[in-house]
Amino acid sequence: MDFTQFIRTIPDYPKPGIMFRDITTLISHPEGLSASVEALVSHYVPQNIDIVAGIEARGFIIGGAIAQRLGTGFIPVRKQGKLPWKTIGEDYELEYGMDRLEIHEDAIGAGARVLLIDDLIATGGTALAAATLIDRAGGMVVSAGFLVDLPELGGAGKLEDRDIPVHVLCAFDGE
Amino acid sequence: MDFTQFIRTIPDYPKPGIMFRDITTLISHPEGLSASVEALVSHYVPQNIDIVAGIEARGFIIGGAIAQRLGTGFIPVRKQGKLPWKTIGEDYELEYGMDRLEIHEDAIGAGARVLLIDDLIATGGTALAAATLIDRAGGMVVSAGFLVDLPELGGAGKLEDRDIPVHVLCAFDGE
Repeated sequence: MDFTQFIRTIPDYPKPGIMFRDITTLISHPEGLSASVEALVSHYVPQNIDIVAGIEARGFIIGGAIAQRLGTGFIPVRKQGKLPWKTIGEDYELEYGMDRLEIHEDAIGAGARVLLIDDLIATGGTALAAATLIDRAGGMVVSAGFLVDLPELGGAGKLEDRDIPVHVLCAFDGE
Repeated sequence: MDFTQFIRTIPDYPKPGIMFRDITTLISHPEGLSASVEALVSHYVPQNIDIVAGIEARGFIIGGAIAQRLGTGFIPVRKQGKLPWKTIGEDYELEYGMDRLEIHEDAIGAGARVLLIDDLIATGGTALAAATLIDRAGGMVVSAGFLVDLPELGGAGKLEDRDIPVHVLCAFDGE
């Protein structure tokens, strides 16, 4: 499947000059959702994943489906203040200002092989913060999977520099 | 499976007197996630669901997995300002103040049979707003599924008063 054909591009969102890649049109299509999940699941079946971590909020949709198909549990990596129990958090830089991700402090067993999932990788700031958080919680991010890569922004390379292999289903250049 | 045994109760969260039912401990457990999704999927297989709508954010985790297993697409029902394309929105009352849910205006085909999914039903305000929104978009909410019901708060009854059958996996009373 050519996943890019199912993804809607919204020019100048959220601000002028940005081409936003909208995956809602991919996952609202039965074959789009099914093929996306299948492609990631078949890649990860041999990797003995213990648990899937999905990044809020679009990473929850794909991550939950992948975890269920891999027969693992799922942990949500959430924005600050959203989790009800004791958390650990990691700050990361946005283009302007900072943001913070959190997980429950008891969410990951020691040495667990964690698959990190989000819908899209751009600069990689969010994914790197999530990987640091999972490391600090005692887990090991063995791979990261995304529906979409924006290779010009270099995020996948930054994850691979941290020895986290990246698997993506499609990529968009800047046009 | 006794789903209640996998759910963590956090007293006095988010404020004194509230017993918060934390489903992250259910879904982080491989059998917990698997059995939850299977139980809802097996209930909904005969119902010819066209699309699953999950409510932000925990409804995305279970809803994405259910959609993938039912072979349908998934649409996110999101908080205000989170969707990138043209939206329709519905305000609803919280205990103090108002909140707003949105879906993409083209997310649902005319007459589509929609399954509404969230982690928990309490007063039902969020689920009712989501159902209204789906109606306005041209869909038909044929059922609503939740991991947890808090029957004292009456939300399931309110949905059923609107001719939306409710299926839940477990319930907690006030203690």
